[in-house]
Amino acid sequence: MNTYKLTLQYKGTHYLGFQVQSEGKTIQGELNRALKTLSNGAEIKSIGSGRTDSGVHALGQVVRIEIPVAIPVESLARAINTHLPLDIRVTEAFSCSEHFHPIFSAKSKEYNYLFSTRPILSPFAQELVTTFPYDLDIAAMKQGAKYFIGKHDFINYQCTGTDVETTVREIFDCEIIHCNSNGHLSEIVEGYYLLRIVGNGFLKQMVRLIMGALWSLGRGKITQQDLINSLSLPQKSRLGATAPPQGLYLKEVHY
Amino acid sequence: MNTYKLTLQYKGTHYLGFQVQSEGKTIQGELNRALKTLSNGAEIKSIGSGRTDSGVHALGQVVRIEIPVAIPVESLARAINTHLPLDIRVTEAFSCSEHFHPIFSAKSKEYNYLFSTRPILSPFAQELVTTFPYDLDIAAMKQGAKYFIGKHDFINYQCTGTDVETTVREIFDCEIIHCNSNGHLSEIVEGYYLLRIVGNGFLKQMVRLIMGALWSLGRGKITQQDLINSLSLPQKSRLGATAPPQGLYLKEVHY
Repeated sequence: MNTYKLTLQYKGTHYLGFQVQSEGKTIQGELNRALKTLSNGAEIKSIGSGRTDSGVHALGQVVRIEIPVAIPVESLARAINTHLPLDIRVTEAFSCSEHFHPIFSAKSKEYNYLFSTRPILSPFAQELVTTFPYDLDIAAMKQGAKYFIGKHDFINYQCTGTDVETTVREIFDCEIIHCNSNGHLSEIVEGYYLLRIVGNGFLKQMVRLIMGALWSLGRGKITQQDLINSLSLPQKSRLGATAPPQGLYLKEVHY
Repeated sequence: MNTYKLTLQYKGTHYLGFQVQSEGKTIQGELNRALKTLSNGAEIKSIGSGRTDSGVHALGQVVRIEIPVAIPVESLARAINTHLPLDIRVTEAFSCSEHFHPIFSAKSKEYNYLFSTRPILSPFAQELVTTFPYDLDIAAMKQGAKYFIGKHDFINYQCTGTDVETTVREIFDCEIIHCNSNGHLSEIVEGYYLLRIVGNGFLKQMVRLIMGALWSLGRGKITQQDLINSLSLPQKSRLGATAPPQGLYLKEVHY
């Protein structure tokens, strides 16, 4: 078997998430189908760095594949792309050791969440950015984001009913950045905000729940102290909504 | 009747063009449906500044509407947007005279055509930018763009079989601009080129044929002289392909 490390970009809008399922269109399902075609129908194997939910995008998902045919790495990305839909692209391909594991070898992951406070979101940005049309105290949100940095029990920031060994995760960086677009793009996606979060691992829907809590803070519905408490004590109720998937991007996986 | 001037943005990907047709989804069809709902089913009327083809986008289409109900202009855009799909947005609404005509009152129109020479186009840019993955002589294209400026017979730059009174049009500005994206967007749409063209009117598919001719020039398949000839003599064959619709935007209509 030939083992390769791929970097994938995808627009998750029309997929049920990364991980292959028995029914429905998934990113991994499309990738497996492309690889099988390239391998003349022989058995192939793919492992991603983690699931992404339905509608969530990726700028740098990492996948290890095993295929029976040897394809020069220089032409592997192009060869796979030929058999993939246009909203999934392999951007890089490298040969890798069979000991490389996309999940267990990862040191950290970065997620980005894009949101705009404009009441009218451009038709071109609908699937790429979430609109949250409220008057937000961005300075308070910037302060609030800092509390997430460090090792915490994120039991209040996971999808209920998830089965994990521990809900403790370490966050290395968490910040709110104001971005300006330029040129033609400034009309496609005007000024927007980005939640940038880097950690050693993330629970299911954790980033979207952190985004939701920060929105509540920005609207004055919760205090900085509520946020601090949520990282040390189990809460009876959520601090905010689960932010919708279309603003979320798996940005990069670091090894 | 109450007469208003609307500015519309739309992503044309899932529509058969602006103009209402007996069958199939169109921008005007969706707008008329929204206006009819707002008018409790009464007769309404809409006139756009011009057709845009299937898959072509708009950043500033102008539409005059006549509706039997009087809605304060401050809330008109929001009211219409409530009844429109998310890939069509009214961005501005003004009261206007019944003598204002979106086509005949227009002094000039600006179109933009976005293209990238990257072999792998980001999944997020597929519907917004056209990829033309060739080594292009951009300097030659910049020079070539200038020949279109002025009053010319554009008989070689129209869709065959179109019935128009004259094929003479005046172009006020025509240039190729290199754009860089920044921030998060730089990964969604990396460096790209923009053909910016302003004129007093455009024949059917004229901008896409000009784009195609400039691509031919950039690849060295035609010369500057071929381009000059095409603006004074009828040609036996096209100078290039008809560029695909997904890179084209009706940018603005000037009155």
